[in-house]
Amino acid sequence: MTSAALHFLKGHGTENDFVIVPDPDGLLDLSPAAVARLCDRRAGIGADGVLRVVRSAAHPEAREMAGEAEWFMDYRNSDGSVAEMCGNGVRVFARYLQLAGHAEAGDLAIATRAGVRRAHLAKDGDVTVAMGRARLVDGAVTVAVAAEGERPARSWPARHVDMGNPHAVAFVAELADAGSLLAAPVCSPAAAYPTGVNVEFVVDRGPRHVAMRVHERGSGETRSCGTGACAVMVATARRDGVDPAATGRPETYTVDVPGGRLLITENPDGTVEMTGPAVILAEGDTAAGWL
Amino acid sequence: MTSAALHFLKGHGTENDFVIVPDPDGLLDLSPAAVARLCDRRAGIGADGVLRVVRSAAHPEAREMAGEAEWFMDYRNSDGSVAEMCGNGVRVFARYLQLAGHAEAGDLAIATRAGVRRAHLAKDGDVTVAMGRARLVDGAVTVAVAAEGERPARSWPARHVDMGNPHAVAFVAELADAGSLLAAPVCSPAAAYPTGVNVEFVVDRGPRHVAMRVHERGSGETRSCGTGACAVMVATARRDGVDPAATGRPETYTVDVPGGRLLITENPDGTVEMTGPAVILAEGDTAAGWL
Repeated sequence: MTSAALHFLKGHGTENDFVIVPDPDGLLDLSPAAVARLCDRRAGIGADGVLRVVRSAAHPEAREMAGEAEWFMDYRNSDGSVAEMCGNGVRVFARYLQLAGHAEAGDLAIATRAGVRRAHLAKDGDVTVAMGRARLVDGAVTVAVAAEGERPARSWPARHVDMGNPHAVAFVAELADAGSLLAAPVCSPAAAYPTGVNVEFVVDRGPRHVAMRVHERGSGETRSCGTGACAVMVATARRDGVDPAATGRPETYTVDVPGGRLLITENPDGTVEMTGPAVILAEGDTAAGWL
Repeated sequence: MTSAALHFLKGHGTENDFVIVPDPDGLLDLSPAAVARLCDRRAGIGADGVLRVVRSAAHPEAREMAGEAEWFMDYRNSDGSVAEMCGNGVRVFARYLQLAGHAEAGDLAIATRAGVRRAHLAKDGDVTVAMGRARLVDGAVTVAVAAEGERPARSWPARHVDMGNPHAVAFVAELADAGSLLAAPVCSPAAAYPTGVNVEFVVDRGPRHVAMRVHERGSGETRSCGTGACAVMVATARRDGVDPAATGRPETYTVDVPGGRLLITENPDGTVEMTGPAVILAEGDTAAGWL
């Protein structure tokens, strides 16, 4: 990484936060160390990840998508590793394109390492992102949390939902029943989740309206998880006897996450869309020589 | 707070981090809500606190210090409340004054709510801050941490040190012996600390060189605590039979905190000085309408 100043913005979607680095011509060599330094919450700017904004035509991983999607979301985790997709990140990415004059309200296609993602910028500010297909996996799974202080160990039956990544969705009486979530909940049988699992705890808030907490593999409890909200919507709809594939009608649930509110729509073809806020809150430059 | 863009910088001292808001003429009405929003680590810029930079002559709380110290450090905690002093904050404040051309390398006086603080900007970049006087309080105190998982409950004798705020300094075999520090350690007798206590766990690293972890009342474990490092130095010096008041010579210890390295000097008159790094890493503006 150069020691010259780096231009950045900071944004968040339901408190999943990002440092946005505009690099239209793909000129920056943004090393894993530089990403980790930017994302450091005490010694850096602080974020869950970096969204580098590059023209698809200017990036070797995106060039063949350039005809379909002008902009490539080069997403990096806060540890500097490369990631394929992030639903909350796509919302913030789309909002940046709008603010920068690269996109207008309406439909938009964004290139990601998971392929082209369709998004929609509403005039009211919310952003909708196509999240792919949810798949309910057969077989009983159980989610358990260990005892903490005077709170006894607890366990719940859960639904296994695959959103491209694995989820276990447990319906609980109170969100506090999951305890501190400082340790990962244990899912069994372990064989159901060979690569780990994201666990959602869900309570009802009203008709077609739930609230959730989420423990993400590798990250711990987070303020928001886009695929988790989609898994929760689909598991809740089936529990309620709601199935767009049967009725031919899209169905929408409100899913409150700790960092805000998402609307999740399941279509008759099984695809899922997520709608939620995206905020750009600051813009600046790193100090020369710092990065 | 106005909805206009707010100019800010971000900086840190041993990973105690701050949003710096230049406001030389004291024109900003920086509400507690605005401070909390700036310091929010997911939905805002993120910091342990805000340092507003105001000319002493332009601030009612600092006007009478204006002859002695041109600049007033209006320090706010991340919850928006007003605070008197922060040693790591003074270092970052001094570094900002230097970068902005308001101060040169050498001695500097800074107005704070705890009075005028003397600082020194070294040519190598470190900043020294006068931290006041340490007072060792007589009477045995004990620090205890609860059992966690398979780790049993533990307790240690501690030194009671007053730095204007209360400290309990415990010497341990390994820093990990203190456990997760997710819960506050318990100090007894409780009557020794009627307003709560900051607890330091200390190990030896070499001659006149220790490392510490700290649990701050109200904040939990932090990456650095200036007064805590001073309390640790004085407690360690006395344990070692080192006493500047007896020899008439200043004595310096290296104190490693999780966020970096501090040098603490005790003078024969009992005053303590802290020397450490101060980094300004970014500069920018909030989005109009966001704050």
